[in-house]
Amino acid sequence: MEIGSEKLHSDIEIALSAKMKPIKEIANSIGIKEDELDQYGKYKAKINSTVMKRLEHEQDGNLILVTSINPTKAGEGKSTVTVGLGDALQKLGHRTIIALREPSLGPVMGLKGGAAGGGYSQVLPMDEINLHFTGDIHAITTANNALAAFIDNHIHQGNELGIDPRRIVWKRSIDMNDRVLRNITVGLGGPSNGVPREDGFDITVASEIMAVLCLADGLQDIKKRLSKMVIGYTWGQRPVTVADLGVEGALTLILKEAMKPNLVQTIAHTPAFVHGGPFANIAHGCNSVAATKTALKLADYVVTEAGFGADLGAEKFLHIKARGAGISPKAVVIVATVRALKMHGGALKEELTREDLSALKTGFENVKKHAETISAFGLPFIIALNRFADDSPLELEAFGKLCLDSGISYALTEVWEKGGGGGIELAEGILKLIEDNNRSFEPLYDLSDSLEVKIVKVAKTVYGASDVDFTPAARQQMKKFEQEGWGSLPVCIAKTQYSLSDNPVLLGRPTGFKLTVRELKPKIGAGFIVALTGDIMTMPGLPKSPAALRMDVDESENAVGLF
Amino acid sequence: MEIGSEKLHSDIEIALSAKMKPIKEIANSIGIKEDELDQYGKYKAKINSTVMKRLEHEQDGNLILVTSINPTKAGEGKSTVTVGLGDALQKLGHRTIIALREPSLGPVMGLKGGAAGGGYSQVLPMDEINLHFTGDIHAITTANNALAAFIDNHIHQGNELGIDPRRIVWKRSIDMNDRVLRNITVGLGGPSNGVPREDGFDITVASEIMAVLCLADGLQDIKKRLSKMVIGYTWGQRPVTVADLGVEGALTLILKEAMKPNLVQTIAHTPAFVHGGPFANIAHGCNSVAATKTALKLADYVVTEAGFGADLGAEKFLHIKARGAGISPKAVVIVATVRALKMHGGALKEELTREDLSALKTGFENVKKHAETISAFGLPFIIALNRFADDSPLELEAFGKLCLDSGISYALTEVWEKGGGGGIELAEGILKLIEDNNRSFEPLYDLSDSLEVKIVKVAKTVYGASDVDFTPAARQQMKKFEQEGWGSLPVCIAKTQYSLSDNPVLLGRPTGFKLTVRELKPKIGAGFIVALTGDIMTMPGLPKSPAALRMDVDESENAVGLF
Repeated sequence: MEIGSEKLHSDIEIALSAKMKPIKEIANSIGIKEDELDQYGKYKAKINSTVMKRLEHEQDGNLILVTSINPTKAGEGKSTVTVGLGDALQKLGHRTIIALREPSLGPVMGLKGGAAGGGYSQVLPMDEINLHFTGDIHAITTANNALAAFIDNHIHQGNELGIDPRRIVWKRSIDMNDRVLRNITVGLGGPSNGVPREDGFDITVASEIMAVLCLADGLQDIKKRLSKMVIGYTWGQRPVTVADLGVEGALTLILKEAMKPNLVQTIAHTPAFVHGGPFANIAHGCNSVAATKTALKLADYVVTEAGFGADLGAEKFLHIKARGAGISPKAVVIVATVRALKMHGGALKEELTREDLSALKTGFENVKKHAETISAFGLPFIIALNRFADDSPLELEAFGKLCLDSGISYALTEVWEKGGGGGIELAEGILKLIEDNNRSFEPLYDLSDSLEVKIVKVAKTVYGASDVDFTPAARQQMKKFEQEGWGSLPVCIAKTQYSLSDNPVLLGRPTGFKLTVRELKPKIGAGFIVALTGDIMTMPGLPKSPAALRMDVDESENAVGLF
Repeated sequence: MEIGSEKLHSDIEIALSAKMKPIKEIANSIGIKEDELDQYGKYKAKINSTVMKRLEHEQDGNLILVTSINPTKAGEGKSTVTVGLGDALQKLGHRTIIALREPSLGPVMGLKGGAAGGGYSQVLPMDEINLHFTGDIHAITTANNALAAFIDNHIHQGNELGIDPRRIVWKRSIDMNDRVLRNITVGLGGPSNGVPREDGFDITVASEIMAVLCLADGLQDIKKRLSKMVIGYTWGQRPVTVADLGVEGALTLILKEAMKPNLVQTIAHTPAFVHGGPFANIAHGCNSVAATKTALKLADYVVTEAGFGADLGAEKFLHIKARGAGISPKAVVIVATVRALKMHGGALKEELTREDLSALKTGFENVKKHAETISAFGLPFIIALNRFADDSPLELEAFGKLCLDSGISYALTEVWEKGGGGGIELAEGILKLIEDNNRSFEPLYDLSDSLEVKIVKVAKTVYGASDVDFTPAARQQMKKFEQEGWGSLPVCIAKTQYSLSDNPVLLGRPTGFKLTVRELKPKIGAGFIVALTGDIMTMPGLPKSPAALRMDVDESENAVGLF
């Protein structure tokens, strides 16, 4: 697919043939002591919270945020570029840590087959990271479903709190693509089986607990956040929280180990923190605050990524994660590919191998919009043009010209095929930007703005919408939420990742569109208000021929079929 | 509760105050090399399959099986005695390994609060073992639910195999006590959400995959067993297997690490293998073959336990696990308590602190029946009388007299309070039995017997039933299963654990009762046919005040409220 796909090596083959260093050595290289580490096998470890305490007064390193254009079916390789950039910085002699999200098993079994970078820019052990890793997502699933069981048990045992079974907003979760669990009825079969009601499962990475784990600052903060989560409403329509049920202690206990950042390595032995993986639409879509903050204490450069395009991931990274945690990127990378831009310019997926300068030019508007957004936040950026095998020389030249004409700097990356060596130009570009920049980002809205103003500001400045339509239900909710005292939280707009607008087929740079906000959801534990635009899928389905059909274990107990 | 409960230390307090040795040292003490070990933190490890290969030709140590009378609400402390006996053998200078089941998180959150022995006879780290441990049960949940998703996806995508959605026998699973998930409907809300059907969740330890993992001999055997699991029937009522769906490779991959035995230690640093935890009614209820066989290669004495009373756990341990794996216990411990025997003799739970020699005498018949059963298998045994604080001297004396009159040997244990020191008499008794015994157990039925004959033999010899009633449905199933070629599998009778009969309120030693077999279930991957008698609960519920309400994490990140 990307450069190197002409060779007959799949990601798993490259990953399994790579020679890892013992994780103790990797930890040691960034100054983590052995008693601050809990090993999970020889090549994975969890980092104890004692590290942060020890380094509390150290200066932070430089944070680099990797984001992208709106994703297309052509693939952009954002994680691959993130890993490759980290390896390139390490190769240039800089103390570097990469901070990534954990992959969700459901999509691995479905379409993706794997998600830990690609080619020679991967984090290892790729097979274990894609399967159970250190059990974080399982712990979140468990906490999520324990809470669901406590809710239904409370109702079954007399419902002292007066929870309205029709107004429970806490859903069950599972780390699997399982469409039949989207809408279910539970509690059937008579009184001993509880009180019947409508329910449904989300994929675990969409659980508020995943967002809580990613945004919390330590175990006591997790507990505080968990206790504030709204699980539903009483018959009198007052919110019911986890604290009302009294189970925040048990949920915290379930999450105790999952809270600790995981340490692994890239093929080039660059340390990588892979921790947390919230959805980038219903949640904020970036790795954990704990991992990012710990990495900043341990390295001069920390490379991290945010989910989907800059309109979703980077916006939320900045407004939700970075503002909440008191950190700021020093510079931003926007990943783009010729293939994806041609799709944004109207080319069909089947025609992407054909040279199409006109589509490229039209599609380039998508990069430009994201570049403007990052500028609006006051941050310097560089475009990483992630080269694919069938990009033509003329297309590459045309891209360079488009950048030059727009005053945008870019670097060509070939990290899939060459690892860090294919990202040197990008690394040098980033180092230059950081050297010249001493500012933090400027939020596009204030927390004291009303929920409506916050949403409108993001819609206009980041998406390029002409205006926002709120449904009557959404307006009523905004009013109610502000009455509940939730008005000062940031907003987390759930929107299709494929378009800057809320219509997935409007590619490139749509203009003159109105964003429609249908519904709001309070995520008080996570600390944001979700605003839903369009139908947001929180439980994917499996394709006709799932990747699982090609998975196996060979005679030497190695994984087969992850790619 | 048990001796020592007068002191103000809970199990978790004792566990947290114990000083563990690094797991590398424990491994080293039984000759496991560092590269054969995958550490999960400092005090837990998985043992690679290379150990078994290296020791293939070594002689096996002596296996000791711990079973008990029919359990009552008074508590027997079977796991506590198992751990205490192991510590006692170690204390006497014998190379000993304890082999236990993994606790299920659902009951921990519900009633139990913890399950890794008790008092000074515990396995550590108790908190982690009771929570996620090394993720085995999460892996089983994941494999179980991946299979469920593959089934529903197959139907949604065209149903090439012609699976009848009304005849799917594969249920979803979750490691939580959650009664509202027993009976559900899935696939609601229109065509994009799959095909609607009735479904339900079992607790994970009731999943056939748990039984497969526990009975399989290596990863390739797991794959073969998984491929044979029956997930439902076609419109033409022919069985559909995992092999038909082609996902046995993916499921094996999900279970790759879970297959490896886990090593931990007791408070006295005796090595303990804690691995696998199938239900002892719907499944066979003992720890994994992989763990037991590996332990037998590494130690002179291996102490293991089977679930519930000897009528359920020991019978299945012998007929299913031991026969399949080609191993045999050298001697058996039957755990009894004065309290529990008084309940078997008609005393009420509220009156157990009151001396009641008459109830004790009547209840003693329960011990005698289990003793006869173990004798019928041709195995020597000893009763462990697990002493509780309010056992009166007269009661203890009466118990001794009852044993003497029946020609049964027994030993008093005080392992809750004293650890291994409280189990020396029991250990010496067991050593004597093993010294005098060179036989393997004799099964009570042959695999070539018909399913009906197998069930009748167990019912009469082990339960003491006068006869067995098969419902017409059960008779039809027996015929069908034998036509399918499943007739030569052992039977796994699902019966209440509280009574020797299929009526939970018939305590003591009921006679003249008929066992009713209602239904049969093929567990072809596990390798047995389940015969259901009465209503067998495969998804427990939470109590009004779940143990979870008292759980927390303290400022030092230690677990609170596990007991």
